[in-house]
Amino acid sequence: MNRPTHGGNLAWAASLAGCSPRAILDFSASINPLGPPAGVLAALQENLLTIRSYPDPAYRELRTALAEGHRLSADWVLPGNGAAELLTWIGRDLAACSGTYILTPAFADYGRSLRTFSAGVQPMPFGFAPTPIAAELPSALTAAPPTAALLLNNPHNPTGKIFPRAQILRYLDHFALVVVDEAFMDFLPPAEQQSLSDRVPDFPNLIVLRSLTKFYSLPGLRLGYAIAHPERLRRWQSWRDPWCVNQLAVVAALAALPDRDFQQSTWAWLPPARSCLYAGLAQDPRFQPYASAANFLLVHSQEPVPPLQAHLLQQHQLLIRDCLSFPELGEYYFRVAIRTPEDNQRLLAALRNYLF
Amino acid sequence: MNRPTHGGNLAWAASLAGCSPRAILDFSASINPLGPPAGVLAALQENLLTIRSYPDPAYRELRTALAEGHRLSADWVLPGNGAAELLTWIGRDLAACSGTYILTPAFADYGRSLRTFSAGVQPMPFGFAPTPIAAELPSALTAAPPTAALLLNNPHNPTGKIFPRAQILRYLDHFALVVVDEAFMDFLPPAEQQSLSDRVPDFPNLIVLRSLTKFYSLPGLRLGYAIAHPERLRRWQSWRDPWCVNQLAVVAALAALPDRDFQQSTWAWLPPARSCLYAGLAQDPRFQPYASAANFLLVHSQEPVPPLQAHLLQQHQLLIRDCLSFPELGEYYFRVAIRTPEDNQRLLAALRNYLF
Repeated sequence: MNRPTHGGNLAWAASLAGCSPRAILDFSASINPLGPPAGVLAALQENLLTIRSYPDPAYRELRTALAEGHRLSADWVLPGNGAAELLTWIGRDLAACSGTYILTPAFADYGRSLRTFSAGVQPMPFGFAPTPIAAELPSALTAAPPTAALLLNNPHNPTGKIFPRAQILRYLDHFALVVVDEAFMDFLPPAEQQSLSDRVPDFPNLIVLRSLTKFYSLPGLRLGYAIAHPERLRRWQSWRDPWCVNQLAVVAALAALPDRDFQQSTWAWLPPARSCLYAGLAQDPRFQPYASAANFLLVHSQEPVPPLQAHLLQQHQLLIRDCLSFPELGEYYFRVAIRTPEDNQRLLAALRNYLF
Repeated sequence: MNRPTHGGNLAWAASLAGCSPRAILDFSASINPLGPPAGVLAALQENLLTIRSYPDPAYRELRTALAEGHRLSADWVLPGNGAAELLTWIGRDLAACSGTYILTPAFADYGRSLRTFSAGVQPMPFGFAPTPIAAELPSALTAAPPTAALLLNNPHNPTGKIFPRAQILRYLDHFALVVVDEAFMDFLPPAEQQSLSDRVPDFPNLIVLRSLTKFYSLPGLRLGYAIAHPERLRRWQSWRDPWCVNQLAVVAALAALPDRDFQQSTWAWLPPARSCLYAGLAQDPRFQPYASAANFLLVHSQEPVPPLQAHLLQQHQLLIRDCLSFPELGEYYFRVAIRTPEDNQRLLAALRNYLF
């Protein structure tokens, strides 16, 4: 099997570890360890038989529920079969621009969606350091032609850095199209979020992409959504198939979105769990974690990561995300999800016992 | 709400009937009334927590299981988020041909997938009569240029007619690309099936499209697959997102495919249920059903269908499929799924009591 370009590939990990995929403790995919919410599982149990009918192709109830969270009306929101499915159609809109600036290191699926429609790509390295958490957009972006597009994630994956929203707003008049992938934004406490979702009605050239997969632990069920001008969303709908969000994802979303307790628990769990994992890693002189606003940490390692990754898999059934698929990072970086305090301790103990 | 272009739109029907979508007895979507198989529901219950992990992006186990049913190796089969998602990428391949011949009346989603990539369309009416069940491909197809493509469904939707496989095979050397949508083929007893799946290895220009949605009653869960040359399928995979089949659809398929009892029950139920509904309709001089190889009947009506459809919805919560979205059929045709004998009797009774 080829080395995967995404985290969470348990089939690959299990084949290396010689165990079942279920036995792997997965730090490679950045999924909320508190989920799925109990109410989601109960709703799925109760509504299993809804698979007998087609989903509503207009997804009225789902769009209304998603839009309410952003105080928008339903036609400003389009759900997708994971954010990745929406990235496909975003790639088609980006291909209509003269070129797309992406901040590197960049999420691998951006390359896929841009290649699908032969969009021009302009990689743009941005400065990230162990601290602080906030990062700046590279000033070289100001040299981009007004026919170009900008595609970035905020918080940034895999570094965990956050761009203040004012910085991105500055570029909305500069670029023909700006796509902000906020897949991990909801992990920040509301007061610290830097979402641009409320500015979409003011900027027809702004697309905000969100995910329910990570926060609610539903990667197997697939659910993301885009916030953008209704005309753009209608165009995507005319391109794609009519029922691209499955009915159980609809059921799960309708149960998850009003679950304030789950949201509060997540915001209560993350900061101390992240600090503790960060501190544990920083104690080891071989590892340099990067301060992160998200539910994962990028870590620099003084020794090559692939043998460490293999050791953790084979000896401890722990899967970390190597960064070989990010050419700018290579074999001296890895990324780990923040999990429960117990899981994080298991990882730290396994790392301590590893001799390069 | 706009009148839908597909069957099974229960949200639309419920708004007209003034009842809950669950109260509607749906004859408009051609779904097996015996499903989902009990083993599928049990497997979903047991494996609900698999939604916490990403699906295997290579879908190895699923592809192997699907391919086994056709005695092919896994790389000749690609699962999709319903056959409709695969139609999107088929549309892109069709757009590379000089034009696509489609038999009319044609399934509405063909138009969508062809428009998405601005493919040229050449509508080609074909002759269908109340009897026999078998139909012939129009001989005008022989005048098509060798750069053109052919897209058809077999059995044909909405007429229920079946094209003998030898007839389609004749055109494989004639067209640059031939797509046979066999979404309803598995409803025929094995000895009567006219599938071309076994000929795919001989014809790199042949794509066979299949669905699990209809036979196993999983339209809400979404699962279809394409059988085609591995190189073509790898190209589609490079275009689309990595996790487009959700994990519960994988679980359902792995439970459904080996379920011989369910398959036998379906083949035992359909022919007598279809004959009975056909005979019941034919008794009424206002209705002329068309002999069908599939799990639905096209019916000609002497009076306009929209008031009949509204009456059945509002008075009986029965939904039939009008044919207004097929320009060649218009308001004097409707389509009904074959359901259980009891459901079919309910429909016949409601039709008998209706006075135009």
